[in-house]
Amino acid sequence: MDPRSVGIVEKRFVTFAEPPGGMPLDSGASLGPITLAYETYGRLNDAKSNAVLVCHALSGSSHAAGYYSEAEEKPGWWDNMIGPGKAVDTDKYFVVCPNIIGSCYGSTGPGSVDPATGMPYGLRFPLFTIADIVRAEKELIDRLGIVRLLATVGGSIGGMQALEWAAAYPGRVRSVIPIASTCKRSALSIGLCEAQRQAIMADPDWNNGDYYGREPPSKGLALARIIGHITYLSEASMQRKFGRRLQENAAFKFDFTPDFQVERYLHHQGRKFVDRFDANSYLYITKAADYFDLGEQRGDGSLVRAFSQTEAKYLVISFSSDWLFPTSQSKEMVRAMTKAGRDVSFCEIEADTGHDSFLLAEVPITRLISGFLARVADEGGL
Amino acid sequence: MDPRSVGIVEKRFVTFAEPPGGMPLDSGASLGPITLAYETYGRLNDAKSNAVLVCHALSGSSHAAGYYSEAEEKPGWWDNMIGPGKAVDTDKYFVVCPNIIGSCYGSTGPGSVDPATGMPYGLRFPLFTIADIVRAEKELIDRLGIVRLLATVGGSIGGMQALEWAAAYPGRVRSVIPIASTCKRSALSIGLCEAQRQAIMADPDWNNGDYYGREPPSKGLALARIIGHITYLSEASMQRKFGRRLQENAAFKFDFTPDFQVERYLHHQGRKFVDRFDANSYLYITKAADYFDLGEQRGDGSLVRAFSQTEAKYLVISFSSDWLFPTSQSKEMVRAMTKAGRDVSFCEIEADTGHDSFLLAEVPITRLISGFLARVADEGGL
Repeated sequence: MDPRSVGIVEKRFVTFAEPPGGMPLDSGASLGPITLAYETYGRLNDAKSNAVLVCHALSGSSHAAGYYSEAEEKPGWWDNMIGPGKAVDTDKYFVVCPNIIGSCYGSTGPGSVDPATGMPYGLRFPLFTIADIVRAEKELIDRLGIVRLLATVGGSIGGMQALEWAAAYPGRVRSVIPIASTCKRSALSIGLCEAQRQAIMADPDWNNGDYYGREPPSKGLALARIIGHITYLSEASMQRKFGRRLQENAAFKFDFTPDFQVERYLHHQGRKFVDRFDANSYLYITKAADYFDLGEQRGDGSLVRAFSQTEAKYLVISFSSDWLFPTSQSKEMVRAMTKAGRDVSFCEIEADTGHDSFLLAEVPITRLISGFLARVADEGGL
Repeated sequence: MDPRSVGIVEKRFVTFAEPPGGMPLDSGASLGPITLAYETYGRLNDAKSNAVLVCHALSGSSHAAGYYSEAEEKPGWWDNMIGPGKAVDTDKYFVVCPNIIGSCYGSTGPGSVDPATGMPYGLRFPLFTIADIVRAEKELIDRLGIVRLLATVGGSIGGMQALEWAAAYPGRVRSVIPIASTCKRSALSIGLCEAQRQAIMADPDWNNGDYYGREPPSKGLALARIIGHITYLSEASMQRKFGRRLQENAAFKFDFTPDFQVERYLHHQGRKFVDRFDANSYLYITKAADYFDLGEQRGDGSLVRAFSQTEAKYLVISFSSDWLFPTSQSKEMVRAMTKAGRDVSFCEIEADTGHDSFLLAEVPITRLISGFLARVADEGGL
């Protein structure tokens, strides 16, 4: 176990929005009851002013740091960033990481039992937006008695949540750190996501979303992950890691099994993912990300107006080789933040590791984040 | 009908490599008999010195220019480039365009009848390489009595063939024009192709390649095309064409049917493709393209050595927004050509239309090609 880890942690649960009623969603539907799985690291101070909300991306979970047991081999997904003395320093801050609605790591999602039928929701689960995800996260933050978050922080779809928080609940967020994120996906990015959804929905085992307790659409989900995984890397990093290297015997096989190492690696990524993720969750969360458009939805079509209504300071981080949520999109949000008079720091990190850079230990964003949080904490009188 | 078209054209066929024997392939297998469909435009001069071989890409055919009948709505796939007074001027040059082996437009491929069984080959068709494609094309050129081609020209996988021609048969090629092409695919490009093959092979209707006379793997092939089509475009062109525009009713539908115009466009591309292309051909040709590595296969690991052994002049054209076969790969081949002492012209075209730029009328490569061909013809005493 990493000696600088938060150590053994526990997944907790909170349930709210009991029917009738439930939580109203952007679609007009409502959802309830809602359970959120979440974890916390560090100690909430008496003023409840040191809370940092960590928002996860597409396939993440509440398990952002630490270990569930001594036996667990790998720590949480952002353990290199969260812990005593790390970028998000748990000696100073109280970190909360909820699993988003629609996911499959303990929060209510399409695989949960629909109380109306006693059966898993499947496609009867209502479609939701990033705003709906954040609406549910706010219920958790309310229940923890936190009036104002020191920061919301997240990479990719987590960054969308971090941004949405400040726009939806301006008084509740002191600062926002969107990393490798965007205020709205491009046509390319939507197209790539739709291809991934089609991969799942074309699998006969998907069965229109009703596969719980049966054979899940593993082939489709693996293929979706393969496509997705390629978009998280960069041409340069793939070239560096794999190039055109062949598998062990260094000769073409002249059949349709993988010849190149990169093919085997992608197959491996696909297979691994199937063991840990739910295909319907993949559909719902990618759709929520496609729908996200901060300027349209929070500024009546103007990103500047959307940011004008927020009260947060911003630290925007992008990566030079990210072609899924490219730096140009971070720059666009920074320009709008600046025009809106917000306090903004922006850093494009030179890294060839693509979109997934935000998850990697070797990328030097630690000091950027720790410095920014310290300043915000300081200005907040922490 | 375009008045500057070559007019009504006819698909012809040539058959060779009759068994026993057949044509030996790089895999060690052999293939025969081989039929190639091909078309010609313009007139072969008496010296047989004005022949230009046009090589098609993944989903192309022998139908590069003109119309099969007055009723045909769209001309051949490169009609904007081939015709009287056009880039490849059929008043001057004799254009030959064969359909490659493994394809489904009249040449022998996995959908052809295997004489050994009387049934379609399916996966019993041997895997082949770009060199094998070119080997078959040479049989056609031999039969047309052409000793030395004025030029081999092609985009994408067609460019690979154009390059391979000069390396495999140095004395038979006066010049080469590879467009949006590469001497070897990158790991990213191989990974994206493998995802497309997986889309086909995951479709139960694929049935291990035995689907002829039955339901073909349409869903899988459509998805492969969707993924492929995205890689032929660019972020900028997709943003310009579609942005985040929604379909007619301008509201999210909150279901898993396409919301965005870009999604519907991609679905349309997928569906259209299924009507015209064979899934097994897609597998075989993409694999041949993955295998291509000119330096490895023709220069014992050195691209410079591979080009040293050629006798051709080169015109290399790339497009700034092509991320499938990016300009960097064209520059790499140009550097090797230069080191090898070849006569090289190189032009990177500023265009936001991605890899598919080589097919588009609006991209200004006409004069580049016509000027280069005129010079080569002139120097050849044409």
